Amino acid sequence: MSQARPVTIAFDVMGADHGAAEVVRGAAQLTLDSPNIHALLVGDRAQIDEALATIRHNAERVAVHHTSEWVAMHEKPAAALDDKPQASVLLAAKLVKEGEADAMVSAGNTGAGVLACAKSFTLIPGVRRAALATVYPTAVGRGEKNDPFSLILDVGATVDASAADLVAFAVMGTAYARIISRNKDPSVALLSNGTEAQKGPPRVVEAHEKLKGMAGLRFIGNIEGVDIPKGTADVVVCDGFVGNVCLKMLEGVSETVMELAKYAYKEKLLWRAALAMLSGGIERIKEVTDWEQYGGAPILGFNRLFIKAHGRSKARAITNAGKVAAKAVGNDLAMTIEKLLPGRGSS
Amino acid sequence: MSQARPVTIAFDVMGADHGAAEVVRGAAQLTLDSPNIHALLVGDRAQIDEALATIRHNAERVAVHHTSEWVAMHEKPAAALDDKPQASVLLAAKLVKEGEADAMVSAGNTGAGVLACAKSFTLIPGVRRAALATVYPTAVGRGEKNDPFSLILDVGATVDASAADLVAFAVMGTAYARIISRNKDPSVALLSNGTEAQKGPPRVVEAHEKLKGMAGLRFIGNIEGVDIPKGTADVVVCDGFVGNVCLKMLEGVSETVMELAKYAYKEKLLWRAALAMLSGGIERIKEVTDWEQYGGAPILGFNRLFIKAHGRSKARAITNAGKVAAKAVGNDLAMTIEKLLPGRGSS
Repeated sequence: MSQARPVTIAFDVMGADHGAAEVVRGAAQLTLDSPNIHALLVGDRAQIDEALATIRHNAERVAVHHTSEWVAMHEKPAAALDDKPQASVLLAAKLVKEGEADAMVSAGNTGAGVLACAKSFTLIPGVRRAALATVYPTAVGRGEKNDPFSLILDVGATVDASAADLVAFAVMGTAYARIISRNKDPSVALLSNGTEAQKGPPRVVEAHEKLKGMAGLRFIGNIEGVDIPKGTADVVVCDGFVGNVCLKMLEGVSETVMELAKYAYKEKLLWRAALAMLSGGIERIKEVTDWEQYGGAPILGFNRLFIKAHGRSKARAITNAGKVAAKAVGNDLAMTIEKLLPGRGSS
Repeated sequence: MSQARPVTIAFDVMGADHGAAEVVRGAAQLTLDSPNIHALLVGDRAQIDEALATIRHNAERVAVHHTSEWVAMHEKPAAALDDKPQASVLLAAKLVKEGEADAMVSAGNTGAGVLACAKSFTLIPGVRRAALATVYPTAVGRGEKNDPFSLILDVGATVDASAADLVAFAVMGTAYARIISRNKDPSVALLSNGTEAQKGPPRVVEAHEKLKGMAGLRFIGNIEGVDIPKGTADVVVCDGFVGNVCLKMLEGVSETVMELAKYAYKEKLLWRAALAMLSGGIERIKEVTDWEQYGGAPILGFNRLFIKAHGRSKARAITNAGKVAAKAVGNDLAMTIEKLLPGRGSS
């Protein structure tokens, strides 16, 4: 379980909202924070060198792989990758495939990142479909650090998941929570429209049946929508369609609750004064709920890890994503997942 | 479009959280508020008479249909209805079927209510599956009364909806919003994991294609989870599985935001003071977000309307549910839906 052996993280530094410099800044900080992590920066060399010139970093553990192509945030992923065979995200994945790096991080176009993984990485034996996972804020804390976050997957990679896919997602989430959140025995639940085993569409009912008897993970049964914000389970499993809708709903929620609050308060001076006093606190809520800052969203199911940091990531979030990726590599996430999976080759 | 002709609403008065008296109180108020509405109270006569003896009502427009059986909130719907052929919710549906009443309202067991409808009512020609709809609070207002609510359906009746079912739900929601919210041209959207037409599982992509060319409704395309609290569409269409998860997530959300707020504020006295000042306001948010008070959840798709009021409904919510039911009857909701549906018999 030691992280002492050197780990190289490939950073796709292009196409993020705050520009290449911000991603380079996060990667540079990582080489100062973690003595065993090397950063391989993939992108436009001029921009990278310009950024590095003004940023403290450990030059012995920073390398640059130049390319002049990249995918912008607004581009259609498949078409963009076809047009740009030297796109930074494609090269980063290829460098990982070829063993030049152990995992990759990008704050660029999500779809392009997932496609780049699919092109260069292979699925773990027993896994049919990849999943995009993310942490989200909950009312209760969990794990060694008592973090008020749960993991939910899939949130958009596989919109039409079968029962076997849902089972694999449960395994991936368990392995990830165990390694990254230092949560030794994470509880895992299926998201459904009722807690009873027979609730939900056929794929969910069948997945429940399969998970019930599985060794190596702590399946606590079905949970309902109300349990998501509560944080009833450490790992929430659903198909990418439902997960994406839920995640985006959470994103819109704190904003809307404040709108509703204003609607309710508009006639009362006392309440208005209280809201003004709280404005700093509201900012703080935003911070707490801006869970993308907490290490990014892993694409799980491949033999190599890709951490998708949010497009808006600041340097600190990039550094965290790199640390998470290194931790996953150091603890052999892919092998942990493979060992937990039920009989391989079953669909 | 006149509501002047007499309408009779059958109230299943049994099995609600606050007891028969609270439901009777709501129905009694309706006979005072609305000169054209008759209330047919179905349940235990002793309890009904005891309640009526202490409540103002228009005795000429209140009738009682006695039964000593009913379904409790915790009972399994199908088994309970098998055991109790004289259950109040079954009798209420039967009385509607036989023309003794025009629509029904219940604050009891939801599943039993839906099953009772399925046993006594028939689906509107062209509709294959029923949908449970509900209003939920949004950031923006809509309709003649500028209500900050959108309609979402299905939220649990049909967990596995086909493309044709989703199209029918769009029609039902449009007709309902038009009649009940006096929103002449409600916008209707499909819930998906992206706004593009090709996003989502096959059933959603196919439904998008069908809705795009449809006359009689204003389809604005796909919306994402973030648009639910924002209120981007007047009518949100999804299958009962996704809708149920979303609805229950919304239920848990205001509570959890307050939890997170406490987590963020715990170190700051100023914030703590502000929260104390807001405690009355927080109650008010709860009121605004307790959207079950706003007329209940209609089961749409049958030739007769069933309004499911929340189990916790107070008399005012029951009165409102009765008014909504009468409005739907007076404006012939079922016929409005039937006329809007695409080529009948297509699946």
